Amino acid sequence: VPRSGRRPAGSGTRPAIAGAARRQFAALGYDRTSLRSVAAEAGVDAALVTYFFGTKQELLVSVVELPFDPDQVVPAVFADGPAAAGGHLARFVAHALDDAAVRDRLTGLVRAAASEPEAAALLRDLVQDRILARVVAELDAPDADLRAALIGSQLVGLVMARVVLAVEPLASLPTATVAAALAPTLQHYLTGPLA
Amino acid sequence: VPRSGRRPAGSGTRPAIAGAARRQFAALGYDRTSLRSVAAEAGVDAALVTYFFGTKQELLVSVVELPFDPDQVVPAVFADGPAAAGGHLARFVAHALDDAAVRDRLTGLVRAAASEPEAAALLRDLVQDRILARVVAELDAPDADLRAALIGSQLVGLVMARVVLAVEPLASLPTATVAAALAPTLQHYLTGPLA
Repeated sequence: VPRSGRRPAGSGTRPAIAGAARRQFAALGYDRTSLRSVAAEAGVDAALVTYFFGTKQELLVSVVELPFDPDQVVPAVFADGPAAAGGHLARFVAHALDDAAVRDRLTGLVRAAASEPEAAALLRDLVQDRILARVVAELDAPDADLRAALIGSQLVGLVMARVVLAVEPLASLPTATVAAALAPTLQHYLTGPLA
Repeated sequence: VPRSGRRPAGSGTRPAIAGAARRQFAALGYDRTSLRSVAAEAGVDAALVTYFFGTKQELLVSVVELPFDPDQVVPAVFADGPAAAGGHLARFVAHALDDAAVRDRLTGLVRAAASEPEAAALLRDLVQDRILARVVAELDAPDADLRAALIGSQLVGLVMARVVLAVEPLASLPTATVAAALAPTLQHYLTGPLA
């Protein structure tokens, strides 16, 4: 008979730990999330967290995934050509941030990256290798790397301002208005003159 | 005779503590900076940190100042009218980030804000009340609040991407190129059509 309040190490244990870790990294930040607090929320022994995921840093790397698949999103953003990609990207990002699960994952990533050098390297690699490299391939321009990095700067800043800092009126702005405000910026970084 | 390695509580003690705190908040983030570690770097007893500044949260609020005076900078940015303000603001920010002391203060603020709800509120208030409100006053438009918040999102994102995450090639881009790339974005948020 399993102990009261603890779940046995069955097939649902790993996803339960991953879900609790994702939620706590987003809500508490990296430093205040512990293997013990994750174990408590998942209703398992702390030793099981270590067994499945290793250290806290390894837990972060394991559970933090992009909340969308760049291999699908990036081609869709460029489906109508580079000149329309700014608007498509702005709409995709604004709508993605409306989804609580997506928002939690992104804010967890940004929070951890701001407080923890290893998490900063992880976020940088995720963004550069999984998203920006795909954007660069679609753009096929000599300064595509810089264009992708500038897009990244505005999108990380949007997550910070709209969600983490909750600067008004941006925090409560309707999705379509956010998208309309960002579209010319993203289009400029994609295809406008940079110098 | 003062104890070896400790400085007496003289006139230089408070600035020495403030300098150590500013450096550690920037380099280590809020959570890994402690009253004890600040005291050690300043060469004083930890009790003196508490005596001069109170809690760690109060220490953060005391030492974190904007690295420039918005009452001087904002009018200078608008000196040639709103149509030239985007370029002036982009150049000011790009050059400010070249200064190691400015960069340390800004990254300390952004790092603390990302990991700590009280620091997020502090940064939001600093940015909204001291900087954006001045920009709003200069713009004198019905949607000036939103324009100021959008500018804030791009500037916080620039600090994250160029300094905290160090995304290349943005991290090592020459100052003038950063300013040229950002100017049209900031000008759009200042005076362009948002919807």
